[in-house]
Amino acid sequence: VAMGEFQLIQRFFDRVPVRRAQLGIGDDCALLEGAPAGQAMAVTTDMLVCGRHFLPSVDPESLGHKALAVNLSDLAAMGATPNSFTLALALPEVDEAWLERFARGLLNLAREADCELVGGDTTRGPLNVCITAIGRVAATIALRRDCARPGDELWVSGELGAAAFAVREAAAGRPLPTEHPAQRRLDWPQPQLALGRALPGLARAAIDLSDGLAGDVGHLIERSGVGVRIDWLAVPLAACLTDEPEAERMRLALSGGDDYELLFSAPVEARVAIEQLADRLDVRLTRIGTVVEGRERVITGRHGERLGDQLGGYDHFG
Amino acid sequence: VAMGEFQLIQRFFDRVPVRRAQLGIGDDCALLEGAPAGQAMAVTTDMLVCGRHFLPSVDPESLGHKALAVNLSDLAAMGATPNSFTLALALPEVDEAWLERFARGLLNLAREADCELVGGDTTRGPLNVCITAIGRVAATIALRRDCARPGDELWVSGELGAAAFAVREAAAGRPLPTEHPAQRRLDWPQPQLALGRALPGLARAAIDLSDGLAGDVGHLIERSGVGVRIDWLAVPLAACLTDEPEAERMRLALSGGDDYELLFSAPVEARVAIEQLADRLDVRLTRIGTVVEGRERVITGRHGERLGDQLGGYDHFG
Repeated sequence: VAMGEFQLIQRFFDRVPVRRAQLGIGDDCALLEGAPAGQAMAVTTDMLVCGRHFLPSVDPESLGHKALAVNLSDLAAMGATPNSFTLALALPEVDEAWLERFARGLLNLAREADCELVGGDTTRGPLNVCITAIGRVAATIALRRDCARPGDELWVSGELGAAAFAVREAAAGRPLPTEHPAQRRLDWPQPQLALGRALPGLARAAIDLSDGLAGDVGHLIERSGVGVRIDWLAVPLAACLTDEPEAERMRLALSGGDDYELLFSAPVEARVAIEQLADRLDVRLTRIGTVVEGRERVITGRHGERLGDQLGGYDHFG
Repeated sequence: VAMGEFQLIQRFFDRVPVRRAQLGIGDDCALLEGAPAGQAMAVTTDMLVCGRHFLPSVDPESLGHKALAVNLSDLAAMGATPNSFTLALALPEVDEAWLERFARGLLNLAREADCELVGGDTTRGPLNVCITAIGRVAATIALRRDCARPGDELWVSGELGAAAFAVREAAAGRPLPTEHPAQRRLDWPQPQLALGRALPGLARAAIDLSDGLAGDVGHLIERSGVGVRIDWLAVPLAACLTDEPEAERMRLALSGGDDYELLFSAPVEARVAIEQLADRLDVRLTRIGTVVEGRERVITGRHGERLGDQLGGYDHFG
């Protein structure tokens, strides 16, 4: 929904060459010269707006969780360990019960992730939550978007499409119960922090899946100057997609967004270590394709046929 | 306007003890362990909301400037040197001419202040600008709010009340021309960066004047556990206040806000060095009172009489 239009805005701010930061606009996080011994600071900011990222009826506890989770997911996609965050919050009115629940969701995740709330700003205004999170990562092995190389294998964590399924059902007037796994996936995303922390040194490039696999793969390969071939049958789908027609499964899994899984590229030699990591962390990690030279963006079907045209309508892909 | 109510919100987020940060919620900036050699990272975030912090008719160039300026003012109040910032921006629609001007105001100040835009987020929503700025400061001499000591002298930079004068005139249906010094003060605040950078080692505690002298003095002495005596006749007033009745001069200068000057406490022995600093930087620095033991908050008038009761209506003071 006009995401491309809004990404265009970046060109108004992206024209100043980055001098001081090691990595500026256009990745999951910026990288700043940081603490001792080659550590960089990873910095990311996300703004959640009522009516766009959540409904006015949102459970404030899940909103507090999600507002931090989407930022932690960016840190994970950089391979960074969370350190601290700031919260700016605009509220139409002071509702103590609402704030109590919002703070609970926010601070519970902060505690779990060992990420400290260090400052903030509160003001009256249309409901808006803006969090800036800071993490640390060894600069030379941070998981930038621009480091994928031809020959790398493309991996994805978890299963895709559940959150998009919940969004679709709600939009169609059939909201899922809050306990439905797909609804929980949408409301209570779990950033892949342990995985993100373990990947530097194994993976080369990574991005978190917030806009949908198709768009986010596009970001990664554009920044890396490479192409990609994805095997549609290998893409791990959420269980709730099983009974959907294939075109709908593709739509939900490839362009649905809100999965907050990690997509990463790694050299073939890392395959065994990555499979061992999946076992150790009890996280599903699936090879879904390969990085290739050139600008090719292909998704192949059951018989090896190109399905790329079906992605033509999605921003940044096909 | 219900500022106190919104500051109450902090108690929902302030109950987690700070462990990792050197300084957490409640100061101009948080202080995080930072770059090599005793440097801390100062982090601050401010959210500007349409209808509250600016009017829909705002000149986008001045809005871009001001959104960054208020954050740089927090860095100055910490004694920090600006390093980088992130921008989160919600916009009702993509208006290229508007964005062009907003970006110009923002990036011109960024260049002047040598503060690099390193990341951001843009989304559709009611107009909202949230900036998080990061600076560096030697941790041991950072200008915290909680370091004022009895016997310190209280200093303020510049002159107070101009921005509040412009706000009053606009609210009364008599908006000042954009070139009026008071209107420029409101629209184009100039953060006291050079002063802030020079004060660590001379001053003990500092805060920037965003809510008005009365409220901001209150923050400083509360955090320091001290009292204060201010000499009203010493308070430097903006020229546009000259013809106002004294009660109105007090209201504008003491509780008007938006001055973005620095208020700081310093030991008596630093007086000469501070006066030399004022000459060197060509900044007016005025002694307006003293820090005292206990909880006393007194403002004295022409004949030494207490004017404190006139401040009773203001949050955090009197």
